[in-house]
Amino acid sequence: MLGARLVSPKVAHHSLRLPADLPLDSGQTLPRPAVAFETVGELNADKSNAILICHALTGDQYVASQHPLTGKPGWWQRMVGPGKPIDPERHFIICSNVIGGCMGSEGPASPHPEDGKPWALRFPVITIADMVRAQAGLLDMLGVEKLLAVVGGSMGGMQAMQWAASYPHRLRSVLVIASAARHSAQNIAFHEVGRQAIMADPKWKNGAYGAGEGPAKGLAVARMAAHITYLSEAGLTAKFGRHLQQGDVKSFGFDADFQIESYLRHQGMSFVDRFDANAYLYITRALDYFDLAEGYSGQLAHAFKATSARFCVISFDSDWLYPTAESRRIVQALVAAGRHASFVELNSPFGHDAFLLETPGLTEVVDGFLKAVEQEP
Amino acid sequence: MLGARLVSPKVAHHSLRLPADLPLDSGQTLPRPAVAFETVGELNADKSNAILICHALTGDQYVASQHPLTGKPGWWQRMVGPGKPIDPERHFIICSNVIGGCMGSEGPASPHPEDGKPWALRFPVITIADMVRAQAGLLDMLGVEKLLAVVGGSMGGMQAMQWAASYPHRLRSVLVIASAARHSAQNIAFHEVGRQAIMADPKWKNGAYGAGEGPAKGLAVARMAAHITYLSEAGLTAKFGRHLQQGDVKSFGFDADFQIESYLRHQGMSFVDRFDANAYLYITRALDYFDLAEGYSGQLAHAFKATSARFCVISFDSDWLYPTAESRRIVQALVAAGRHASFVELNSPFGHDAFLLETPGLTEVVDGFLKAVEQEP
Repeated sequence: MLGARLVSPKVAHHSLRLPADLPLDSGQTLPRPAVAFETVGELNADKSNAILICHALTGDQYVASQHPLTGKPGWWQRMVGPGKPIDPERHFIICSNVIGGCMGSEGPASPHPEDGKPWALRFPVITIADMVRAQAGLLDMLGVEKLLAVVGGSMGGMQAMQWAASYPHRLRSVLVIASAARHSAQNIAFHEVGRQAIMADPKWKNGAYGAGEGPAKGLAVARMAAHITYLSEAGLTAKFGRHLQQGDVKSFGFDADFQIESYLRHQGMSFVDRFDANAYLYITRALDYFDLAEGYSGQLAHAFKATSARFCVISFDSDWLYPTAESRRIVQALVAAGRHASFVELNSPFGHDAFLLETPGLTEVVDGFLKAVEQEP
Repeated sequence: MLGARLVSPKVAHHSLRLPADLPLDSGQTLPRPAVAFETVGELNADKSNAILICHALTGDQYVASQHPLTGKPGWWQRMVGPGKPIDPERHFIICSNVIGGCMGSEGPASPHPEDGKPWALRFPVITIADMVRAQAGLLDMLGVEKLLAVVGGSMGGMQAMQWAASYPHRLRSVLVIASAARHSAQNIAFHEVGRQAIMADPKWKNGAYGAGEGPAKGLAVARMAAHITYLSEAGLTAKFGRHLQQGDVKSFGFDADFQIESYLRHQGMSFVDRFDANAYLYITRALDYFDLAEGYSGQLAHAFKATSARFCVISFDSDWLYPTAESRRIVQALVAAGRHASFVELNSPFGHDAFLLETPGLTEVVDGFLKAVEQEP
């Protein structure tokens, strides 16, 4: 059975408070939200080397530095670092925690400006476009007018596309990896299972749980369900198959007999140590609401009309969360909009998570694309 | 949020108690278990017209008659009835609730013979082969020595294959629909999410909940997660897409905005009215333990060596729970074992659930196969 652990110990994050209130798609306003971020490298004299990295659902700003809660290395050190495609010696790299998140940016666990108690469900429901609006506010404060590139995998890719639609003249290139321009019914269904698992946990208390007292079991179940969608069936079979924990002995009970069970339980339990349950509700909602074409009468190409950025779209053949067909749809719209768009489908057994892992060809493609953009006038 | 409802009101089921204790794969013994069943049609004079239908994970014996809890028609009236492929005017049709179930056969909600209280987790963990052993005991009591056919979809198909291995001389034909000869890592993973959702619900009480007081919310979440696997992505998109409940108005809250959310919640909530949470644990465990080749040194073909039954294996192209590749593996083993095996992959947008729905070709294939078997000497 899943154990209950602490939900989110307090740590200090590097953050700025936006100078103005943030208007939201819902019609509400977020009063001067905090935006937590990390930067690596330095902005050059003509301010032409800034790259914004957008993180995925459960990611955060610690893209290239040790995570303060888990102690693990940055989540994209394969891609970001000296000699890597996104290189602090060449680039000014910015990664910010999305609003609605729980790593320092304004979110449901942040203190409400009026009473200092957590926002909890008083926090307004936000969208991918709201996240991007907050990032644009951060860039203003950092003195970055135009990005060399906006780069993201999964939900990060959605933000990258939203950037092209919301701020078409503030970017020279867009890199979209393992993503989709809308959430499908199946995507929404999996998220709804996770939300219901959280909300079914009596410790959720309609969102008003105390720090460290949240719905750990519900959140762990939500993570387990989601985690299955990040891996491919073939990858699971290769890694775990039907291997038992104890040689070839079945317990004939409900302990974790199979290695895959033990692995999933571990994924669920370790997640609750670093993530806030309400933040999970808000961010999954933002993802489910995402349909970039919606604001353009259902014409996805129209979302890409105003920008002149170059695009690179990358998918993985074993990704069934945001399958290649979704990337193809994006590329079709891009080309129809007159954009330069490169499309690469990479071979990987690792499913959706391939964008975070060692995937042959991935760093080369990102490297080649960014260097080509840099060499353009 | 999911509401709590009654878990399993008491109803009377037609059942027999086996004349002897039932030995189990675990090494334990089930003292004279009750087996609930329904029969339709009559056994003919030479006892050659009996067909056993095996039900799926959440199915039951009400294959052709109104369900006593839901009031819905029998779950396979498309296939079973006058003029249908399995026809009470020609066949003696038997369908029994699996042991471990909750519709009258001995299961965790049944009274323990010693103290009359529910078995709960004292119930031994059972396997697919144990279910089949109980069915064989029932057939003995009904005077059926040899089956014209054993037929099943999903977990029912696993029982059908197990029949061929356990009682090779008691059947003339085997019909396996939308099934697999083993549970994959991904299959186990989804079940483990469901089990953890149930066990995370404080009302589960380590299985010792009272009648009508079970972990309804946890069970509903388990059902929601499982239900996604029964449908195809394309089917979900066609049926629900991103359609909202209220025209084009988003609530910017956590109510069921999308039709798919509302549908899933309904699936979860209506399930807890007819199913016992502990039974769900036991039956998913039996499925996860299933690997027919395991008892034959990993050689699936050897499981089919002893029988001379004819086989028909049917898969659906959009089924990702037990995909066509698993059926292909079964057929390969059957032919390698020297069996006559027909293999049909049907086109359907409905995913795994296609075996329960109106699927072009399905009744014709079942009808043709059974009639051919009947006409053989």
